[in-house]
Amino acid sequence: MNKYTIGIDVGGTTTKFGVVNAAGEIIEQDRIPSNQHENVEDFIDLLHSKLAPMIDRVGGHENIIGIGMGAPNGNIYTGTIEYAPNLKWKGIIPMAELMTQKFNLPTKLTNDANAAAMGEMMYGCAKGMKHFITITLGTGVGSGIVIDGKIVVGHDGFAGELGHTVIRYGGRLHKGTGMRGSLESYASATGVRETAIELLTQHPEKESLLRNYSINDLTSETVYHCAIQGDAIANEIFEFTGMILGESLANFIMFSSPEAIVLFGGLTKAGNLLMNPTRKHMEENLLPIFRNKVKLIFSELKESDAAILGASALVM
Amino acid sequence: MNKYTIGIDVGGTTTKFGVVNAAGEIIEQDRIPSNQHENVEDFIDLLHSKLAPMIDRVGGHENIIGIGMGAPNGNIYTGTIEYAPNLKWKGIIPMAELMTQKFNLPTKLTNDANAAAMGEMMYGCAKGMKHFITITLGTGVGSGIVIDGKIVVGHDGFAGELGHTVIRYGGRLHKGTGMRGSLESYASATGVRETAIELLTQHPEKESLLRNYSINDLTSETVYHCAIQGDAIANEIFEFTGMILGESLANFIMFSSPEAIVLFGGLTKAGNLLMNPTRKHMEENLLPIFRNKVKLIFSELKESDAAILGASALVM
Repeated sequence: MNKYTIGIDVGGTTTKFGVVNAAGEIIEQDRIPSNQHENVEDFIDLLHSKLAPMIDRVGGHENIIGIGMGAPNGNIYTGTIEYAPNLKWKGIIPMAELMTQKFNLPTKLTNDANAAAMGEMMYGCAKGMKHFITITLGTGVGSGIVIDGKIVVGHDGFAGELGHTVIRYGGRLHKGTGMRGSLESYASATGVRETAIELLTQHPEKESLLRNYSINDLTSETVYHCAIQGDAIANEIFEFTGMILGESLANFIMFSSPEAIVLFGGLTKAGNLLMNPTRKHMEENLLPIFRNKVKLIFSELKESDAAILGASALVM
Repeated sequence: MNKYTIGIDVGGTTTKFGVVNAAGEIIEQDRIPSNQHENVEDFIDLLHSKLAPMIDRVGGHENIIGIGMGAPNGNIYTGTIEYAPNLKWKGIIPMAELMTQKFNLPTKLTNDANAAAMGEMMYGCAKGMKHFITITLGTGVGSGIVIDGKIVVGHDGFAGELGHTVIRYGGRLHKGTGMRGSLESYASATGVRETAIELLTQHPEKESLLRNYSINDLTSETVYHCAIQGDAIANEIFEFTGMILGESLANFIMFSSPEAIVLFGGLTKAGNLLMNPTRKHMEENLLPIFRNKVKLIFSELKESDAAILGASALVM
């Protein structure tokens, strides 16, 4: 009896989903934009139209155990998405309930980063680890915290919002939350773009390949492409991003003393450009008892796979 | 058969200890200075000379189950105190082993703040709570984190060093660690004294009752006494301390989403002078999903009791 699960990862920009078999393999997957629909019902309709044929191809509903879903501010206790700053749907969205109605399948929802952490623990480089933290560096900065082999959800299900911890008092405004100086306002794809704009406008005298791009084309990818060509400002952007990230990671380590920190998401494509300054500033900001102990690693799972697998594991 | 345990709380300044009965009552207690002895063996000798008569009075060794001890940087896995910035004994001190040898009783050691958290969970205002954080505002700033009803010790036993997380980038130098801008450098008794000196020297034109004290007598207590008399600078000191503490607590809440934060230690004697600004800045720095949910409370246990009881519970 080969039973399947569906894993869905609602990201700030893209929603990725797939059908997962009993061996933990994603046998089919696809993606849709997350923010094209003002109404969550329209979003769910599109998701259903894409998933229905996949479900048919594995033999229909009776072969699907259920749907696991990760989303920003997703709450495992209530099945709701509550006030997610990076999503269009405002207020409290009863996502698990709406999904269950539409798909006629049991749906469990959790925080997107917690889903990724679960995927990493079951299938990735954190396999066998009891204490680790995953940080997703995408449109926003998500985090999943594992202590004693369990995802930390806290008293009300919202634990692990490390992207919103403040690392620079009075620092950069986060437009989604109105807070200043949060990790996410610097160490996300959005943050890297803002750092680029800041450095380019603050230093009009400095030459940079980045000046060849229109402001709309200034993304973390263009910064990366300029950095590997040796562009000084582009390299400075990653140095700065790594400094902020490293300092934040040091604070997190002194909280839960993990064995490893696993970095995910688009920004990790920058490789050592990001890893080196992050590690340096992480170590420098740790008490000696924590130094040179914590593994800082990039996820080995394909970017979208960890969250899809982790979400699907919710209903296993 | 009435069996007793011994609980010992090694603080930055004072070591408090007591004999605890099966009902969780401290039936006898005393204290010695923590930092009078360069040699840890001399410290243990003094501790032994004080505890031996107490042990005799409950019927001798055979009536003692063991010794539980809380100390800064105490490691429950190894029984060692490692590189504690606020203690005189440097390097790695095999405290549990030395105690066992001297007392001929099984000794378990943990972080002092973890011991306090355990005491609070068993006998204090966190009774029945599964998720809470205790913050000890004494000579230093300690912390004990409880998630799912268990003290968080992390991969290597050192989790919960929240006093050393950085809240002000490039901020005040912490003389013990060499780090800048850590919570402890502001929100400890030492930090309050430093804030007082800073404000008095930066604003020589401002009148203050605090100027009547010699620099040696400027302590968190004198600041408190001046504040309740309406002294503007003294009040500003608590406002500032509460701001830093509140911002830090907001970061911690977004990590583990606790039901409550329990504040302990000398500084809490300031009552609402500290509580009000702390709560205000804590709430202001939280994502909306966390606001007006987390109880911020002062410990109801007598200051020294929580840690003694919590430490004693290690060997229960």
